[in-house]
Amino acid sequence: MGKVGIIGLGLIGGSMGLALKRAGLQDTDIIGFDRDRDVESRALKFGAVDKLARTLEELASQASIIVIATPIVSIEKVMREIAPHVQRGAVVTDTASTKGSVMRWARDVLPQGVHFVGGHPMAGKEQSGPQAAEAGLFHDRPYVIVPSVDAGPGAVNAIIGLAEAIGARPFFLDADEHDAYAAAISHVPLVASVALFALARGSSAWPELAGMAGPAFTDLTRLASGHPEMSHDICLTNKQNISHWIDRYVAELRRMQELIEGEDEEVLFRLLAETQIERENFLAKPPERERPGLPDDMPTPSQSFLNLLAGSMWAERAREITTSLEDRARDREREDRLRRRRD
Amino acid sequence: MGKVGIIGLGLIGGSMGLALKRAGLQDTDIIGFDRDRDVESRALKFGAVDKLARTLEELASQASIIVIATPIVSIEKVMREIAPHVQRGAVVTDTASTKGSVMRWARDVLPQGVHFVGGHPMAGKEQSGPQAAEAGLFHDRPYVIVPSVDAGPGAVNAIIGLAEAIGARPFFLDADEHDAYAAAISHVPLVASVALFALARGSSAWPELAGMAGPAFTDLTRLASGHPEMSHDICLTNKQNISHWIDRYVAELRRMQELIEGEDEEVLFRLLAETQIERENFLAKPPERERPGLPDDMPTPSQSFLNLLAGSMWAERAREITTSLEDRARDREREDRLRRRRD
Repeated sequence: MGKVGIIGLGLIGGSMGLALKRAGLQDTDIIGFDRDRDVESRALKFGAVDKLARTLEELASQASIIVIATPIVSIEKVMREIAPHVQRGAVVTDTASTKGSVMRWARDVLPQGVHFVGGHPMAGKEQSGPQAAEAGLFHDRPYVIVPSVDAGPGAVNAIIGLAEAIGARPFFLDADEHDAYAAAISHVPLVASVALFALARGSSAWPELAGMAGPAFTDLTRLASGHPEMSHDICLTNKQNISHWIDRYVAELRRMQELIEGEDEEVLFRLLAETQIERENFLAKPPERERPGLPDDMPTPSQSFLNLLAGSMWAERAREITTSLEDRARDREREDRLRRRRD
Repeated sequence: MGKVGIIGLGLIGGSMGLALKRAGLQDTDIIGFDRDRDVESRALKFGAVDKLARTLEELASQASIIVIATPIVSIEKVMREIAPHVQRGAVVTDTASTKGSVMRWARDVLPQGVHFVGGHPMAGKEQSGPQAAEAGLFHDRPYVIVPSVDAGPGAVNAIIGLAEAIGARPFFLDADEHDAYAAAISHVPLVASVALFALARGSSAWPELAGMAGPAFTDLTRLASGHPEMSHDICLTNKQNISHWIDRYVAELRRMQELIEGEDEEVLFRLLAETQIERENFLAKPPERERPGLPDDMPTPSQSFLNLLAGSMWAERAREITTSLEDRARDREREDRLRRRRD
């Protein structure tokens, strides 16, 4: 009997449990833990977990895959608490929105023989808690995988398998790339959304503004309703990247402001028309990122995921393969980028 | 037989027609006109209008209520073309997203005895054309009404009735207020959305960014898919207000950037938490704006609307009422604002 342990049973942890159960894994138990007893019992009631562990130790000593889905700033503490109890060969992953700090904590805290593979499912909504969880939350969403230097290819493969089991589209980045890109594509939108709401709310004309607000304002400020603790953690653990991209966002706004104030109507029109076309292209078909190829003799990700759950500790053998999957993935990405720059 | 004429049969004009027909007005014909024959025939096919006018003259000489739902920059030209033919006592309205220019054009172009009442239904979506039209587009949406100085109370009342017939929530602003507020609540969100998309799209990391994009990015950039001609018109006819609010938006972003970079974590958390609560309050119950009260001897808006359509030209009598509805509304709003400032 394989065991997946989920620590933190809010929106993401709860949805992960529901999605894994919908995937119909045989002989797999999902054990859950949350500091909040209320959250725990709701997650159990909604069927996000099969049972609850009474302590982190109980969970850590049983699970072959451990998913840490707590707020970012709690992750280091959770790692310290589970470290003495995690099985050798087990794979630990997380779901945090920033990866630099998490990867450092894993390196410093988790013992040798435990594989850490960072993860970031690019999914969410403004509601939180297990009552907001849904099995389909990750469906067709990108799932960034950030292997630690020590993680064996089998462990990496298992997390690819996990991501695929819940319907997501896994792809690789290193922690620095992840945090830089996430700042642009996820954290600055969050800041932009909060700032837009705060701007209108802080105006003396707020009653008029609110009365006039249509779908544009409501949609653009959606992220301002996100969980403040989560937003706060993101800002604290990705300061420099977010600040850098705010600078670039402000520069873009200033560029548009100049065009709006300026006399050359055509340039503004061209910008608006091009942006519309590019966004339609993006919606129709996001640029593809290939998944790194697998050596012929390696099990597929879903096999790795299932093997690990079934107890066939494949990771040791996989370690022998000298060119690790993640290195190859990284090399290929570097080449791709260089090629694009040359083009 | 009353006649409503709709000029411009795209998303807004088409939805207006569908909504009016769903309202089940008896003995009312909806006549449509669009420069684009294709748009005209689709609007007729989808049932947005009862029949098409061959010319603007034909439409203008028959309709007692004329809705101009063309792109903003075409409105002046349309007014010039209909001006010689509009019936005395008819009410002309528009649906443009900016009001200053439109009110000036109406004053300069439309003849004495024709009542112009500006309108701005705060509804829309990124698709355009009559095929995107829906009867429910205006349901429970704010509908700003901007009476011209010359418009009689009966005419104003008729446009309130029109807004209510299509399910919207009418309220009054003057043109300057409207354009300032719309810049904050609608046009700067548009600019923010376009800038966010252009920022990511212009980055050399775009393939990675697009691969990682989750619902945050997609939702926040939704307005970048809007009709570029419409966005362009908005920017051109509301330059100063938009530029002013971009300055304020940038200041708000800089404030957040400082908090993110700074050491005082609590201030940032407080901002995020307060914003979340305020947005939930806003969603639960937008601040109410009362509709101006009606004198006892005045027909209700829906009566006015129907009277006008039925040909009982109530406007002349209503003119005699010395305190016009719109003046009272404006006075009351001014008082409200002063009171709020004092509080």
